[in-house]
Amino acid sequence: MNSFGHILRLTTFGESHGPAIGGVLDGVPAGIVIDRNFIQERLDRRRPGQSSITTSRSESDRVELLSGIFEGRTLGTPIGFVIPNTSSRPADYDKLRDVCRPSHADYTYMAKYGHRDHRGGGRASARETACRVVAGAICLKALSDMGIEVFAYTSSIGGIECAKQASQVDPAGIETNPVRCPDYNAAEKMAEEIKKVRGEGDTLGGTVTCVIRGVPAGLGEPVGDKLHTMLGAAMLSINAVKGVEFGDGFAAAAARGSEMNDAFTAAGADGKPSFATNHSGGIQGGISNGADIVLRVAFKPVPTLMRPVEGALASDGRTITLDCGGRHDCCVVPRAVPVVEAMAAISIFDAILLNRSSRI
Amino acid sequence: MNSFGHILRLTTFGESHGPAIGGVLDGVPAGIVIDRNFIQERLDRRRPGQSSITTSRSESDRVELLSGIFEGRTLGTPIGFVIPNTSSRPADYDKLRDVCRPSHADYTYMAKYGHRDHRGGGRASARETACRVVAGAICLKALSDMGIEVFAYTSSIGGIECAKQASQVDPAGIETNPVRCPDYNAAEKMAEEIKKVRGEGDTLGGTVTCVIRGVPAGLGEPVGDKLHTMLGAAMLSINAVKGVEFGDGFAAAAARGSEMNDAFTAAGADGKPSFATNHSGGIQGGISNGADIVLRVAFKPVPTLMRPVEGALASDGRTITLDCGGRHDCCVVPRAVPVVEAMAAISIFDAILLNRSSRI
Amino acid sequence: MNSFGHILRLTTFGESHGPAIGGVLDGVPAGIVIDRNFIQERLDRRRPGQSSITTSRSESDRVELLSGIFEGRTLGTPIGFVIPNTSSRPADYDKLRDVCRPSHADYTYMAKYGHRDHRGGGRASARETACRVVAGAICLKALSDMGIEVFAYTSSIGGIECAKQASQVDPAGIETNPVRCPDYNAAEKMAEEIKKVRGEGDTLGGTVTCVIRGVPAGLGEPVGDKLHTMLGAAMLSINAVKGVEFGDGFAAAAARGSEMNDAFTAAGADGKPSFATNHSGGIQGGISNGADIVLRVAFKPVPTLMRPVEGALASDGRTITLDCGGRHDCCVVPRAVPVVEAMAAISIFDAILLNRSSRI
Amino acid sequence: MNSFGHILRLTTFGESHGPAIGGVLDGVPAGIVIDRNFIQERLDRRRPGQSSITTSRSESDRVELLSGIFEGRTLGTPIGFVIPNTSSRPADYDKLRDVCRPSHADYTYMAKYGHRDHRGGGRASARETACRVVAGAICLKALSDMGIEVFAYTSSIGGIECAKQASQVDPAGIETNPVRCPDYNAAEKMAEEIKKVRGEGDTLGGTVTCVIRGVPAGLGEPVGDKLHTMLGAAMLSINAVKGVEFGDGFAAAAARGSEMNDAFTAAGADGKPSFATNHSGGIQGGISNGADIVLRVAFKPVPTLMRPVEGALASDGRTITLDCGGRHDCCVVPRAVPVVEAMAAISIFDAILLNRSSRI
Repeated sequence: MNSFGHILRLTTFGESHGPAIGGVLDGVPAGIVIDRNFIQERLDRRRPGQSSITTSRSESDRVELLSGIFEGRTLGTPIGFVIPNTSSRPADYDKLRDVCRPSHADYTYMAKYGHRDHRGGGRASARETACRVVAGAICLKALSDMGIEVFAYTSSIGGIECAKQASQVDPAGIETNPVRCPDYNAAEKMAEEIKKVRGEGDTLGGTVTCVIRGVPAGLGEPVGDKLHTMLGAAMLSINAVKGVEFGDGFAAAAARGSEMNDAFTAAGADGKPSFATNHSGGIQGGISNGADIVLRVAFKPVPTLMRPVEGALASDGRTITLDCGGRHDCCVVPRAVPVVEAMAAISIFDAILLNRSSRI
Repeated sequence: MNSFGHILRLTTFGESHGPAIGGVLDGVPAGIVIDRNFIQERLDRRRPGQSSITTSRSESDRVELLSGIFEGRTLGTPIGFVIPNTSSRPADYDKLRDVCRPSHADYTYMAKYGHRDHRGGGRASARETACRVVAGAICLKALSDMGIEVFAYTSSIGGIECAKQASQVDPAGIETNPVRCPDYNAAEKMAEEIKKVRGEGDTLGGTVTCVIRGVPAGLGEPVGDKLHTMLGAAMLSINAVKGVEFGDGFAAAAARGSEMNDAFTAAGADGKPSFATNHSGGIQGGISNGADIVLRVAFKPVPTLMRPVEGALASDGRTITLDCGGRHDCCVVPRAVPVVEAMAAISIFDAILLNRSSRI
Repeated sequence: MNSFGHILRLTTFGESHGPAIGGVLDGVPAGIVIDRNFIQERLDRRRPGQSSITTSRSESDRVELLSGIFEGRTLGTPIGFVIPNTSSRPADYDKLRDVCRPSHADYTYMAKYGHRDHRGGGRASARETACRVVAGAICLKALSDMGIEVFAYTSSIGGIECAKQASQVDPAGIETNPVRCPDYNAAEKMAEEIKKVRGEGDTLGGTVTCVIRGVPAGLGEPVGDKLHTMLGAAMLSINAVKGVEFGDGFAAAAARGSEMNDAFTAAGADGKPSFATNHSGGIQGGISNGADIVLRVAFKPVPTLMRPVEGALASDGRTITLDCGGRHDCCVVPRAVPVVEAMAAISIFDAILLNRSSRI
Repeated sequence: MNSFGHILRLTTFGESHGPAIGGVLDGVPAGIVIDRNFIQERLDRRRPGQSSITTSRSESDRVELLSGIFEGRTLGTPIGFVIPNTSSRPADYDKLRDVCRPSHADYTYMAKYGHRDHRGGGRASARETACRVVAGAICLKALSDMGIEVFAYTSSIGGIECAKQASQVDPAGIETNPVRCPDYNAAEKMAEEIKKVRGEGDTLGGTVTCVIRGVPAGLGEPVGDKLHTMLGAAMLSINAVKGVEFGDGFAAAAARGSEMNDAFTAAGADGKPSFATNHSGGIQGGISNGADIVLRVAFKPVPTLMRPVEGALASDGRTITLDCGGRHDCCVVPRAVPVVEAMAAISIFDAILLNRSSRI
């Protein structure tokens, strides 16, 4: 339904043009020092209108934290929050009341529920992911206190690939450009491609790579809640995501075992081994091995073009050509980077809490 | 932990060289007619030693159904089952007691639990997937009664690709060759590659494509339990899986929106629209649209080579070269086909049951 | 943690003196017609200051529905809501910052979390139950549309018992008196006892009986989620509840089998049997039999007296006598009646949705 | 459905006259030393035919542990087990195939599922509780290693009450008599009453009191998973249970606040306070306070009399008088004592594991 997680559990609510969106993060341990500005800053990284390459539609997205934090520290009780929907202009959407846009959730929601909130995608709007960023910020803070660093970056847009390997990326370099790609050469090409394709009224997909550094070995549960499963499910719940892979992923499927094995290197002073390579992306048998966790998420291009699209479905069962109008992103991938980080942080923190029961 | 699903819930247990493996499938509706032979046949498709390209290790894998079925029909109560471990030769594994093989779960289980059953992978053995095949067979039967067909096939091995598109595949043609690839030309090349690589003591990965036909529109829950998430989590819990994608998946991330939109075609006599293309793989906004669901799963090559591997970790923290011996598959992909089908069937049946609550 | 239910799931948040309390009701089927006034009316039945026998502290308790309802009908998406805390006077609670009141949650929250929101009970305040009343109102409406009636009443206060049997109670007669007891003679005695005991600065407990009429046979799941369990867990999660019983309950434990059997009477025109008696309270083997469900809930007297209490724990480990001051209910039982109804409605609606999967 | 618990999760399966009953206990931490004899001994305490006052039907109830334990210690992986049904005589039950016994689960299972296993109660048989005793034994061992003692005893049968208070009971004295009552005077009267009532072909109910000593303060989650809820749900899932109360329970509902408050006594050398009284039964605000947890469970008399019962429902909708025959317990309460202990142990161990996430 509308929840994620096991011990740490996020439930979100809200349609994009109702009074507000929001959520409840339950299961947060007591005693985490919370800086409200940090949460708002994370939210600002996701909001529309933040840079030259995102939609010109500007939303302020102010989060109100309603519970679970007292005198600057988490209480152990659920953290409830809302983000009011301020820029709502429902009349903009009247033409969508009886029409289903192709490759959108309009038709599938109708098929499931029999009616829908047609304004701006309703519950299916990517606006919902703002709630995940709020919850993720709390988890990122907790992980940071444990020495765990979570960061993501744009690893491709429209086929233009970031040439830097995940292991080489310095997270400080990601925010230096609006596409959030640490390979500045590629970043420039991506920005140009976005401008060009936007000029044609078309849209672009891309991939986001996420790296989690400093994770202890032992996270993830056997069989049903492998770390692959927990992280993968989190990613696959994000709007427009059509694939996820870990380590060498699909490339590993074309390789030989002798090329893919991550040999141990002798244990260090702390008694913990290292690994000569990281084809596994830090997960073996579904459980973290202490190396960097590396995963890559595929975002399809958004289906709403800035030009008329053919093959929309009218209420009488005929197909029509539809001009959606509105101000949309040509490429959501840069704005999806903080969402991927948030979902990774929620999953890893949940895995850490679950793992507290692994031994008597 | 060791469970899957929401209303329909599979919990499995068992180490590969303990007395037995088994499971409980809870939440199965009453009244499904069950043929015990059908379940055993599905299990036989997964077992070792079934063909020239799998391991020569032969296991009989007889399932004993212990509850939940009475006079040939499901009772609505949990279906408990066990599969005794008959070919157990624990002494074969003595050399692994204090050694962690590279890219295996040996080290990660030790890091998590402090000790492990070292015999044949213990809980991390792919033998556990036999339990999923048993539960999946029950779900496949229920889905078949509703007119829903689930099938999977080998879509690549070691970089050799099946040239047939998912929409063109006739499931009757899959079992005609031991690699389970419906493109017979590719199947032959794959079988040759397996023989060649096995001769070199190395292993191969590959991909399995799964197609689900006849699914009604409306399956999948918004946000937290999208059909992407439910199916993806199921796949990512399978041993050796490192990635999953839906429809055009990672290729969609390199394309433009105008290329990826699935235009509606006018609704037919039943009032339901069709789609001109299926880039979405039958899922939009996380909910099925009635087109074929198509997903692809990446399996890494198994890390146990049939030759010594470097970089194993000894108990004293040094690395050693290890000869695992034993009789292992060079490529598990063909045997993974029924596992993928089983996990897909469990997930889809669960989604169907969840969807019974979508409207008042 | 802070959730109830299986398919239908309520998660609440909020401390009594933070900015707001609220919740998310997830899993509500689409298409239920919702009257916002009805929800507010239910909430008004719970609020303080509603009658001569409740606390003179008046709280307005206005619910804001933020999502999940569109054009008067449920969308199938989560219903998020908040109730702002308007009458917050945190300074009133300064004296409780470092003191644990006896028989309160002050000490147990400190033991669990290491710190707490000391203002008005924080998360442990019965104010949280307002959120359950909001969610319960939505469920009551859905049940009412199916012909299922849920009502509760005060069945004893301070040992004064309601003489009417559950089967004789006309729900229309419950609201005619402020104690919500359908035996008007007892109601008058209860009101007098409350006034007398309040005058002494003491408090009173009591019991609430809940009746659910029109429930179909077949609700409740075998073994783990019996209807006893689902309803009982819901009741035992209410503040100050120390016991729950079904049908003849504890009295049945002192009786013989021959006295407790509910004989069938011949099936009627609809093919459904009736029962000569209802010692079982409408539940047999954990599953509803179609007779009225009857349960009784025990509320202990509130521990905050309107006079100094001995045995409070100071931060230095010594015990002190504490005058809590404030304006508290002498007896919360009448205000708990709508909370019991709400929890019963949530549980029964959840059981109805779960039961949609009982047969293929 | 057929599961209990949150992090620690028991799922059971099996009909009383199928091939076997069994279960899976998932979420057990690694490293608990397990003595298989101890588990079998616990099971023997529940089995039929163990003493002069139980049914003469003797069942051997041998548990087979199939997984999750290796070299005498838990692995952290699920513990699967089966108990074969050896004394099955299905033909004994032919007369029940088309008849529903009054106050049994026969009718409610039919209403729910449309058909049922009529042999010996099928899934609704109390035989299922043997699986809980197995899982409970593992939890009792883990709790014992932590210094937590769980014991239960018969506190009333047919209205004859145990005069000893819970705080006075020495667990060593419970097994000295077949009714398992630590008040030997009452025990004798209970045994006589059972013999007398059995001679009349009738049955008796009773209550079981459970005490948990040595529990740390802080167990139980706010609001949704209070310790009342977790323990209460566990008890209400046991066959024939119709009520549960904590501490003074229903008696508290008739008392005044001044009588029910548990005053703190000054903290001891360990910094932890004690309590002058224990009306709360060790739980305040849903969370343990460190005092003994005390709860009482009401069992109705079994509905199967050893004489003909009126008001059974035949398949044609008429009512008949039915002679069930068979060898049944006159009073199941003494045999329910180990089941109550098992469910308490499972719940408390789960609460301990959940509580590991209460603080950062």
